[in-house]
Amino acid sequence: MPQPPSTDRTTPRPRVIIVGGGFAGLAAAKALRDAPCDVIVIDRANHHTFQPLLYQVATAALTPADIAWPIRAILGGQGATQVLLAEVTAIDVDKRLVRTTGGDFAYDLLVLATGATHAYFGHDDWAAFAPGLKRLEDATAIRRRILIAFERAELSADPVTRQALTTFVVVGGGPTGVEMAGAIADVARYALPPDFRNVDPAQARILLIEAGPRILPSFPEGLSAHAAASLRRMGVEVLTGSAVTGIDAAGVMLGRQRIAAGAVIWAAGVQASPAARWLGAEADRAGRVRVGADLTLPGHPEVFVIGDTAAVTDAADVAVPGLAPAAKQMGDYAGRAIAARLRGASNPTPFRYRHQGDLATIGRKSAIVKLGRLTLTGFVGWAFWGLVHVYFLIGVRNRVAVASSWLWDYVTFGRRSRLIIDPAPD
Amino acid sequence: MPQPPSTDRTTPRPRVIIVGGGFAGLAAAKALRDAPCDVIVIDRANHHTFQPLLYQVATAALTPADIAWPIRAILGGQGATQVLLAEVTAIDVDKRLVRTTGGDFAYDLLVLATGATHAYFGHDDWAAFAPGLKRLEDATAIRRRILIAFERAELSADPVTRQALTTFVVVGGGPTGVEMAGAIADVARYALPPDFRNVDPAQARILLIEAGPRILPSFPEGLSAHAAASLRRMGVEVLTGSAVTGIDAAGVMLGRQRIAAGAVIWAAGVQASPAARWLGAEADRAGRVRVGADLTLPGHPEVFVIGDTAAVTDAADVAVPGLAPAAKQMGDYAGRAIAARLRGASNPTPFRYRHQGDLATIGRKSAIVKLGRLTLTGFVGWAFWGLVHVYFLIGVRNRVAVASSWLWDYVTFGRRSRLIIDPAPD
Repeated sequence: MPQPPSTDRTTPRPRVIIVGGGFAGLAAAKALRDAPCDVIVIDRANHHTFQPLLYQVATAALTPADIAWPIRAILGGQGATQVLLAEVTAIDVDKRLVRTTGGDFAYDLLVLATGATHAYFGHDDWAAFAPGLKRLEDATAIRRRILIAFERAELSADPVTRQALTTFVVVGGGPTGVEMAGAIADVARYALPPDFRNVDPAQARILLIEAGPRILPSFPEGLSAHAAASLRRMGVEVLTGSAVTGIDAAGVMLGRQRIAAGAVIWAAGVQASPAARWLGAEADRAGRVRVGADLTLPGHPEVFVIGDTAAVTDAADVAVPGLAPAAKQMGDYAGRAIAARLRGASNPTPFRYRHQGDLATIGRKSAIVKLGRLTLTGFVGWAFWGLVHVYFLIGVRNRVAVASSWLWDYVTFGRRSRLIIDPAPD
Repeated sequence: MPQPPSTDRTTPRPRVIIVGGGFAGLAAAKALRDAPCDVIVIDRANHHTFQPLLYQVATAALTPADIAWPIRAILGGQGATQVLLAEVTAIDVDKRLVRTTGGDFAYDLLVLATGATHAYFGHDDWAAFAPGLKRLEDATAIRRRILIAFERAELSADPVTRQALTTFVVVGGGPTGVEMAGAIADVARYALPPDFRNVDPAQARILLIEAGPRILPSFPEGLSAHAAASLRRMGVEVLTGSAVTGIDAAGVMLGRQRIAAGAVIWAAGVQASPAARWLGAEADRAGRVRVGADLTLPGHPEVFVIGDTAAVTDAADVAVPGLAPAAKQMGDYAGRAIAARLRGASNPTPFRYRHQGDLATIGRKSAIVKLGRLTLTGFVGWAFWGLVHVYFLIGVRNRVAVASSWLWDYVTFGRRSRLIIDPAPD
């Protein structure tokens, strides 16, 4: 049996520690499969989460097991790779130590792929009332809030209370906000009505609030307008140029206007994980570590920072976006660069991001897709979006499960994912 | 839209309130489908849980959505049936009121099917360290403990700590305890080893502790001995005539012997829900309400108590056991009796329990089955057990999902259910 990992090193092979089992970290670990080194992957969760589909768990279309996969299962076949469940608390770049809740671990090479979390722009008190959507626990918490709002409305004899409880506010008009608003509209209009007697879920009010002049600003204006029109047809109130000025247990404030709501979802901003603080490194406004085009920390060629926690301008002077394909490409690049270095090769060419396109789904049958000069909208876009997401889901089983779950739910408006599970006290 | 349920009655039809969406409550609701009454089903959870398979969620073989089904989904097609998510706090039998966290509801006829919970025999402080297995939340809490014990062992450099963390104690040798011990042995010996480097899950120590002279006392002695031998072959230490004298965060005490453990599971006893206290009714030692052979409360023909929360001796002088088929039969009886009474029929014949047999599974390929004079053991018993359980799972989708999940996992030792999901703070 291999020695326990620790600061006492017994193996002569160099050790690569990868922190984070998201798209970036896993891609790095896979690229190191046959490299002459020991690899340790540390994550505070035991599973990789397919974040692009979190909103479907949050809206009760999929179950957590459909979009998450134990990291051990993904990397179990790589004999020289060990997976540890622990939370990083600090990094000592001089001693080359990762300090965690499960002990300290020495590294020869370090890959930080710790991702991003929600940013409330100085209003951290809003977090309790408006959860974001980054982890599986966020998605189940949002699902619980949405479903319980309908349950409470069913119990209420007061029409005003019922209307307030079945009002849902999504803050932020990027892809996550658009997907959440569309999915809530779908579940409220089509899936829930047969189940309720006293409240009509089809009358639910869904607001998508965007501070900027249009939703989906990363898309061309035409697609953006198309998405807004689709959402409005689905009954979503799209408010652009509207800034949220307050969020509490009862709802949101838009300037002086109060909107009572049964659930508020935050999709307005992200910030990088504390990697910059751990490293004592320079960060951009979103807290991302500034790294060179070889993805290493300036002055520390043994430290790679990749994925959403890195601020990178690539070899073609393109600012790399915070998308899953970009994270995968960075992870693959870092893993290959390390493998090459350990084999004595000279430094590789700098990282170059290949943009594969932009996708956003708007509801049960509609999506917008921009792939170079190709533009898809409506059902064709949705079908393409579904194919791409199922294809990229990790693991054959998950692919089959998600595909069949989607197909089944599409046909039947299935209800299996609609469980409210209390948070256990443990 | 129907009026909100409340103490203000607007419909002239009699109202039947069913408290509890378990096997008994659902069977009663279904039997009332076409009866001339309004039906309200109240449960504190939004889902029916298929309790006989909870241990498979606890041991990461199935996901919660495989064995739970929203009550609204089951009864959504019954137009005169309303489902409410609320917790009962009291019952006023004189005013015929059910008081809940969601308001008070008047009834003409009441069916109490609130089930049972764990009993710690005066040691309620053990509950925090040794969760039982009644609700979905119990199962996910146990799954989290078992998986985290292996994770912590993987992080430990100390062999003694590793052995302690990978010791699992199941208290109680009834069917639930036997199933838990066998399933933990399976997951430790076959499923987990490829995923770990520093700890060998196959070396996990699993103890099944029974205070009585033999495990599975409700089975004939021969089957009981067969089960014990099967468990021992799987590496489970079966300790009969051993009473647990203490449980804390570090493990259990057996007399003066301390056994350090990574997780302790309680399967030693149940007690009825507080229905007897709500009713001010006579209860047996396990807290179950004593009802007549027509399943009504003495002196209150409008109050039925059924399932695990009732102490019933049937028309043939048989004490009705706390099994799922018995709960279903009682629910069906109560529903039919109410429907007949509302149609003006005379009182039905008293309840008579039809025992369908005893089943207990012992691991991945072995079960014991006693059906009248028919006895099945080993793989044949296991196959029979699997067929019966899949057949009785509610809902076509669940049947398909569980069957395919089992088949897939049997072939691949699949890992999809092995997610550790933090309890959300919400």
